[in-house]
Amino acid sequence: MLRSATSALLRTSTELSTVFLVPKVRLLIPTRPLSQPVRLLTLTKPLSLPVLLLTHSRQLSVPFRRTPSRPLSVPVRSSQTKKKPRSLRLSGGLYMDPAMEEILAPLRLAVKEQGELVRQMKQDGLPDVDVTKAVAELKARKRTLEAKELSLEPKDDIVDRTKMEDTLKRRFFYDQAFAIYGGVSGLYDFGPVGCALKNNILQVWRQHFIQEEQILEIDCTMLTPESVLKTSGHVDKFADYMVKDVKNGECFRADHLLKAHLQKLQADKKCAAEKKAEMEDVVTQMDNFTQEELTALFVKYSVKSPITGNDLSAPISFNLMFQTSIGPGGNMQGYLRPETAQGIFLNFKRLLEFNQGKLPFAAAQIGNSFRNEISPRSGLIRVREFTMAEIEHFVDPTEKVHPKFSNVADLNITLYSSKAQTSGQSAHIMRLGDAVEEKGGVINNSVLGYFIGRIYLYLTRVGVAKDKLRFRQHMDNEMAHYACDCWDAETKTSYVPWLLPVCRVGSRSWGADRSCFDLKCHAQATKVPLVSCTLTTSHKVVNVVQFEPNKGAIGKAYKKDAKLAMEYLSTCEEHVISEQEKLLTETGEFTIETEGKSFRLTKDMVSVKRFQKLLEEVVPNVIEPSFGIGRIMYSILEHTFHVREGDDQRTFFSFPAMVAPYKCSVLPLSQNQEFVPFVKELSEAMTKQGVSHKVDDSSGSIGRRYARTDEIGVAFGITVDFDTVNKTPHTATLRDRDSMTQIRAQVSELPGIIRDLANGSMSWAEVQSKYPVFEGQETSKKDTAEE
Amino acid sequence: MLRSATSALLRTSTELSTVFLVPKVRLLIPTRPLSQPVRLLTLTKPLSLPVLLLTHSRQLSVPFRRTPSRPLSVPVRSSQTKKKPRSLRLSGGLYMDPAMEEILAPLRLAVKEQGELVRQMKQDGLPDVDVTKAVAELKARKRTLEAKELSLEPKDDIVDRTKMEDTLKRRFFYDQAFAIYGGVSGLYDFGPVGCALKNNILQVWRQHFIQEEQILEIDCTMLTPESVLKTSGHVDKFADYMVKDVKNGECFRADHLLKAHLQKLQADKKCAAEKKAEMEDVVTQMDNFTQEELTALFVKYSVKSPITGNDLSAPISFNLMFQTSIGPGGNMQGYLRPETAQGIFLNFKRLLEFNQGKLPFAAAQIGNSFRNEISPRSGLIRVREFTMAEIEHFVDPTEKVHPKFSNVADLNITLYSSKAQTSGQSAHIMRLGDAVEEKGGVINNSVLGYFIGRIYLYLTRVGVAKDKLRFRQHMDNEMAHYACDCWDAETKTSYVPWLLPVCRVGSRSWGADRSCFDLKCHAQATKVPLVSCTLTTSHKVVNVVQFEPNKGAIGKAYKKDAKLAMEYLSTCEEHVISEQEKLLTETGEFTIETEGKSFRLTKDMVSVKRFQKLLEEVVPNVIEPSFGIGRIMYSILEHTFHVREGDDQRTFFSFPAMVAPYKCSVLPLSQNQEFVPFVKELSEAMTKQGVSHKVDDSSGSIGRRYARTDEIGVAFGITVDFDTVNKTPHTATLRDRDSMTQIRAQVSELPGIIRDLANGSMSWAEVQSKYPVFEGQETSKKDTAEE
Repeated sequence: MLRSATSALLRTSTELSTVFLVPKVRLLIPTRPLSQPVRLLTLTKPLSLPVLLLTHSRQLSVPFRRTPSRPLSVPVRSSQTKKKPRSLRLSGGLYMDPAMEEILAPLRLAVKEQGELVRQMKQDGLPDVDVTKAVAELKARKRTLEAKELSLEPKDDIVDRTKMEDTLKRRFFYDQAFAIYGGVSGLYDFGPVGCALKNNILQVWRQHFIQEEQILEIDCTMLTPESVLKTSGHVDKFADYMVKDVKNGECFRADHLLKAHLQKLQADKKCAAEKKAEMEDVVTQMDNFTQEELTALFVKYSVKSPITGNDLSAPISFNLMFQTSIGPGGNMQGYLRPETAQGIFLNFKRLLEFNQGKLPFAAAQIGNSFRNEISPRSGLIRVREFTMAEIEHFVDPTEKVHPKFSNVADLNITLYSSKAQTSGQSAHIMRLGDAVEEKGGVINNSVLGYFIGRIYLYLTRVGVAKDKLRFRQHMDNEMAHYACDCWDAETKTSYVPWLLPVCRVGSRSWGADRSCFDLKCHAQATKVPLVSCTLTTSHKVVNVVQFEPNKGAIGKAYKKDAKLAMEYLSTCEEHVISEQEKLLTETGEFTIETEGKSFRLTKDMVSVKRFQKLLEEVVPNVIEPSFGIGRIMYSILEHTFHVREGDDQRTFFSFPAMVAPYKCSVLPLSQNQEFVPFVKELSEAMTKQGVSHKVDDSSGSIGRRYARTDEIGVAFGITVDFDTVNKTPHTATLRDRDSMTQIRAQVSELPGIIRDLANGSMSWAEVQSKYPVFEGQETSKKDTAEE
Repeated sequence: MLRSATSALLRTSTELSTVFLVPKVRLLIPTRPLSQPVRLLTLTKPLSLPVLLLTHSRQLSVPFRRTPSRPLSVPVRSSQTKKKPRSLRLSGGLYMDPAMEEILAPLRLAVKEQGELVRQMKQDGLPDVDVTKAVAELKARKRTLEAKELSLEPKDDIVDRTKMEDTLKRRFFYDQAFAIYGGVSGLYDFGPVGCALKNNILQVWRQHFIQEEQILEIDCTMLTPESVLKTSGHVDKFADYMVKDVKNGECFRADHLLKAHLQKLQADKKCAAEKKAEMEDVVTQMDNFTQEELTALFVKYSVKSPITGNDLSAPISFNLMFQTSIGPGGNMQGYLRPETAQGIFLNFKRLLEFNQGKLPFAAAQIGNSFRNEISPRSGLIRVREFTMAEIEHFVDPTEKVHPKFSNVADLNITLYSSKAQTSGQSAHIMRLGDAVEEKGGVINNSVLGYFIGRIYLYLTRVGVAKDKLRFRQHMDNEMAHYACDCWDAETKTSYVPWLLPVCRVGSRSWGADRSCFDLKCHAQATKVPLVSCTLTTSHKVVNVVQFEPNKGAIGKAYKKDAKLAMEYLSTCEEHVISEQEKLLTETGEFTIETEGKSFRLTKDMVSVKRFQKLLEEVVPNVIEPSFGIGRIMYSILEHTFHVREGDDQRTFFSFPAMVAPYKCSVLPLSQNQEFVPFVKELSEAMTKQGVSHKVDDSSGSIGRRYARTDEIGVAFGITVDFDTVNKTPHTATLRDRDSMTQIRAQVSELPGIIRDLANGSMSWAEVQSKYPVFEGQETSKKDTAEE
């Protein structure tokens, strides 16, 4: 199949040419009706997961949707600052405590047994439906184990979300959009602090990936014509099931509603054990039901609207893309893109040319995507308009070794391998180098391993806590069938611990069949032959079979439609050609249909040509890290939120200086005019150095002003005090937000110090060792005492 | 009116409070039906211009649409490098040449006479329709003058657009989106070079405005519910007229098509002079026709489709917003925002709070907006999805003086004042300080003047040529009636010289009536009282008249609808209250209608309360610079594109280093392994310094590789040659793109030098004076000679 499709695209006369099989798989595979059945393991709803990027992974996000937010009435302190010995840790902050292990042992065993059962069933080639059921049970057992693990964990590092959200709203980090018009669910506006934080997270991303990895960044439109998303399968399959209140029209996600309903029924004491088990079974398999099955279940369990008690419509498929019409004619349907990666695929040819036709290369895009969620919730975590950053790293499959892997090999990262998950083990910390070892390694290849390391470095650099971050490998049944290995970076938040995927990185390869399949889809959809260029890798001789149309005869017979027929002929696969050839030989003619038109083709119009061709062919593999910026930002907020020891009312965000919305505040101790020139000098010098800062010359006490800047995570604070004004050389104090310690340095030096602290080239410890410690503004004992 | 509306909003019991009259004017004014007629000068089509931001100004863009692109067959060299004495220049590169002035004199006179006529007509209070006609004639005369001025200008600085566009496409600066799917008009994807250039233009914008002016940046959603855009008037009026080919449905902008048709008729030699004049009259007044008038004109002149000759539909209004539906219910209509500024207005209250309730402050937003253009063209200049950057600077109207104005007062900027335009003069260079002088100044106030200066500095900093940039003041009849002064930064490009507005800055103030009007609209639309807070400015005693509803009685009578009635009562204006009060006194009841419901209110349900209140009140004025990033980028491309002297095939973009897509290239002279460590050292050091760069270790000759990097505007090039490898200390050469001169410096020093060059802290001249000049790679005479 590979050969025929490839050859169909090679209309040049050169005997030696290279075909880049554009990796459209991501877009194409899970979507179009397959002419030959491909085994889709658990993909009963194939499209709603695999094309998803991490920000909106259906499967992954279901769990945290189920847990409502838990408002804590008692302020709980973050344990961020209390360092515990890492070596004892497993995942999730769990410690190796024999008493705990005793509790967990039977649960671990239950997972292990089921895992073995699933493996055995697959090995024995049992029917998919049975395997799927067994897998669902495995997942349920895994969830039970994880829930128990978490319940045993120390509670001191759970953030006080109510308190944090109060700060976020009050200081306008972000807030609901169009609030004065009643607000729209799932849409948020970022205020000055949130916007600066987000910009800085993206800026570090650009530096960390685009610059350091020399990635080609592109910027594509969000408006996308229907034809593109039809080919990618989004138009047909990118949907969730929903039910509607028949009276007021309120919509609910069918799976969520059914699950909640059954859980309520199960909780009823009168519910018989048998009934309970039956319902548990339904809940466990929730992700796998078809529309018909769901409909039957809604009837069976008499599910009504939980709000009004009204009847509900049958579950219907709701496409999650925002639809619009492009141009004035009203005949070009369009959508807002649901992901950014497709822009990279569509520009693959241009990018390859830009890279002078060489592999490997990577392209990236940062931008907004849109999803018309049925019922958005959980703040920034599930929204209708969101920022993503995606990379597609194209490699030659024969060279899947990253030259810089040694730079990250010694990182120790919490990994939760597929094997660990199916055998009841916890995640554990591994040296990355060991994880990609040939023998016993859990990561497929060093390019993927390199990206996992780089992602780890990025996330921790921007403020995700190391001990609240793990990489979880997709289990066989989670992976789209074209992915050969896929990992989610998951962060622990108060929503559902360990279950917020903030970044996904998959490594994909295609067999000959797959490439052929994609190529065909792509070529047929666009009528544009794929990229070909010269690249010296392996040569192979391929058998080419193609139609040789007689343009004159076809043209004469079909006039302006002749082009259609010719285009169709040029994209036919070998088996099609052979079938028609048989007809042509036997009956002297055959008929094709394309775009609603029918063409009878006779021997004088077309023949079949067979020949051999020397081909250099590269089917790039792709490693694709994809980041959900909103989720990363939310994780950082939770991981850096703290309450000051001894004062519940004073909170702060310990953002790394690099992402802090403002690097420094400038606080004159007095509103006296003599202070003004120093404030101005500092402000101008910092502006010149590109250091974002905030002058607060209000009359509040210095303690109160520090508290205000701490609250929005300003990294450092310069106070211009009376000594600044009265003594030479003029000095001012510099305060570190996290430790609240201060030093004193010359006014002229301070902007440079902040710049170095902010870009990470100097640490606070270094600053402390270089400059005299300062104990408190002499002239304002009262204020300092407030701290 | 002010008082009553204000008081209606003040439901707090505090005796001293401040009301911020949110400047919703921008959004509201030109749109809603006015209960009391407000004189709209020339706004026959009121909405299609005034809410527009510069990127899509209807009026302004019409002229350049009329001129088709002119492919130049002969390569023309840019005169960028040939410096001419500035003092002699007027606008548009025009010189004071007595011979030219002789030609222009009658045209100048014609403008002047018509300008005087218009002023006289306005003064005499003649009917609007007559004034409008006279103004149209004035504009036509102005255009004739400008066209002649341009035709007399030296042609040596017109860019070779064909050559430039070839480079842009070939090196993937940007290209049509979805090209392999046939492409979509008005949508462009930015490739690696264009994306980096755009990012850098925005980065400098952030530094120049957000950082240096301490502006509050926010980031709002693009999806916008209908209610917001209904209030702003976009839903009803944000439209162009179009006609459709009745057979194939092809759409055309009615005004464009009619104009083209008439011009074709006029060009016919058989056309009678009288007919010609009549048609000229129609063309001149094109912007002012109503739908009915346009329809009649299409019939009168028998306009057909220019493509097929088919009949056309009558002109219909086509809304330019992309419509969609938010949420699954299908009952929340939404649109993609057509501008970003509204997000700032909607968040005004939060932003004011963030700024601790103090004026002045400025907020800004960078983001994409969308316009469903009927027939997009001219590349990046008129697109359907585009990036804007907008600032809203709110000031206390009593303090409209900018403290930093002196920083820009000495700038000499080409200004084309309203007066100059209506009296046949050219634009001329003025000292900014003189332009805002109390007497004879042409710029309304120093805050506006300050921003004009800052915009000038920004645009020239990112690469807009100083001598191809002017600020043109809106004439009375161009300004929305609420703007007190408005200027467009216009750049000269090959499309239509002087007519590409890339940035608009307006200064607005509101009289008491206006504020009142806005306040009422806003409050009525959202049922949310406007911002009130304490701010110490002028106090005034106001008479408050308001309804005092008896909640109990209304609630009892109208149950759940009672809220509706109460909301309505709380937003009534004084005159309404007084009328109803009269009824209440006379008949004991009155009836109100709201949201389709009718409420009979009796004396026991409502009374009227009158009292006095001490009010501190601030109606902020606003200065609003708005930037079209795509247009700025396009202007930079044209202004920096050059062909090397003596070699038509070698082109380069002289981007300022600060915005250059890559700051530096690293070119090893040989592929010998010995060169690798030096390339790596340089690349790593530059990455660490945040210097974007591009390694080209391909085997091309050094000359060819320089040419390739020049072509995409890489600012500097380091060549690792044999001396680098063989001699200590290790040195390499550094080349300046524009001058092609080179120096030699130590490898370890080079990254720091590039960083300083890139951020502007060092000039190439300084580098040249510090390091030894290098004349050409010893080992590659041939290559260097290629240059």
